[in-house]
Amino acid sequence: MAKIKCVFSYDGTHFSGLQTQPHVRTVQGELEKALTKIHKGTHIPVYPSGRTDRGVHAKAQTAHFEPVFQLSPIEWKRALNSMLPADIFVAETAEVPASFHARFDVVEKEYRYYILNETEPDVFRRNYLFHFPHQLDVTRMQEAGHYLEGTHDFTTFASAKADIKGGRVRTLYDVSCQQDGGEIVIIVRGDGFLYNMVRIIAGTLLDSGRGRLEPSSIADMLAQKDRRFGGDTLPPQGLYLWQVTYDDTF
Amino acid sequence: MAKIKCVFSYDGTHFSGLQTQPHVRTVQGELEKALTKIHKGTHIPVYPSGRTDRGVHAKAQTAHFEPVFQLSPIEWKRALNSMLPADIFVAETAEVPASFHARFDVVEKEYRYYILNETEPDVFRRNYLFHFPHQLDVTRMQEAGHYLEGTHDFTTFASAKADIKGGRVRTLYDVSCQQDGGEIVIIVRGDGFLYNMVRIIAGTLLDSGRGRLEPSSIADMLAQKDRRFGGDTLPPQGLYLWQVTYDDTF
Repeated sequence: MAKIKCVFSYDGTHFSGLQTQPHVRTVQGELEKALTKIHKGTHIPVYPSGRTDRGVHAKAQTAHFEPVFQLSPIEWKRALNSMLPADIFVAETAEVPASFHARFDVVEKEYRYYILNETEPDVFRRNYLFHFPHQLDVTRMQEAGHYLEGTHDFTTFASAKADIKGGRVRTLYDVSCQQDGGEIVIIVRGDGFLYNMVRIIAGTLLDSGRGRLEPSSIADMLAQKDRRFGGDTLPPQGLYLWQVTYDDTF
Repeated sequence: MAKIKCVFSYDGTHFSGLQTQPHVRTVQGELEKALTKIHKGTHIPVYPSGRTDRGVHAKAQTAHFEPVFQLSPIEWKRALNSMLPADIFVAETAEVPASFHARFDVVEKEYRYYILNETEPDVFRRNYLFHFPHQLDVTRMQEAGHYLEGTHDFTTFASAKADIKGGRVRTLYDVSCQQDGGEIVIIVRGDGFLYNMVRIIAGTLLDSGRGRLEPSSIADMLAQKDRRFGGDTLPPQGLYLWQVTYDDTF
């Protein structure tokens, strides 16, 4: 039977994260519930590219599943969207080779962290950006970001709870900061991310932007390999899993 | 004691409308709860410029209240925001003459209705715009809007449940339609609005935009003075009370 890859967005506000857990509402749980309904009760597992935490959003998360009966990709898209709640939307579906795995075949992920840098909060965006009312220097944040690019041990920038299986060395291809009016976005692209890594990077760049941290001290922080030297973990509502990239063969 | 005017925004998603009602969460209820806390239990009523329905937002609603103890306007702003939930924000506070009344002294209100006119929905904006996936001709919508400008009996464009005390004649100063990418906004300014009037106007302009209604037939619809001739009532999440204007003396 065909293997289906699907790309979907979700508003993380009302989910207890991505991963299926008993008794709570999760994104994976809702996807599996939809597939189970379509399959008249047969449970079909969904394999996502990775987890996201409670309150974290996804612009383009990716997963695969192996349905028991045959529908075309566009029919899968329609069937899933007709069953899913309004805070998940399947944007793309495609048939992939049996060898494809949404988690193991990832070659790059992009995360974005959105900051509303205005004096006053915005009630309409409170769940979609992190509100920081004090002045930020985006040039300094950008400079700090450059020190994180490349291959490093990111222990300083990962939750102490992060799984150490597979080590803590990751490669960041690009860390950039852009400002558009009162909105600042931190864009991070890499081959993989440790637990809370983007939120801690965002917290560290924020310290740089507000003048508490010299951008050049990032190199020392990395060398410490100790979470206590990293910045705060910023709250989840500013974070988006933006893009998951696979090899061209998929 | 001073009378305080305050301008506030709210995300209507999780409110059962503006007006205080028993056993449900309302905007006025939350404001009065905050004022009561500040007054150590003394109930202070809040007088808004008018009601908004369940799910309807406000960018700048206005209300007044008469506190029992004295704070400067900026202290009132801080005190209220420190007590209010995250989906209400007081943006401005000012001392006004004792003769001021937030409802009776309104000279103009502006409402905006936001439509997401893209093929696919946006999970992040589902509570903040009305998603309409079919093609709309904004020029036709704008043309239809012009027929509503001026002084008319708006019975056709009001809920049959609308209070008829004070009649159904209102003056619309401006009805305009603007497009910005996939976003269409209908802006309506007038001296007063009947129950559901903006949502029915938006539904009628939508009929025009999708080619179901000739803009010029709006004149006949008005002349019928019968709700059955008006368009559908669009859902609340696209609607924003955008601005309330008072006489210069306030």
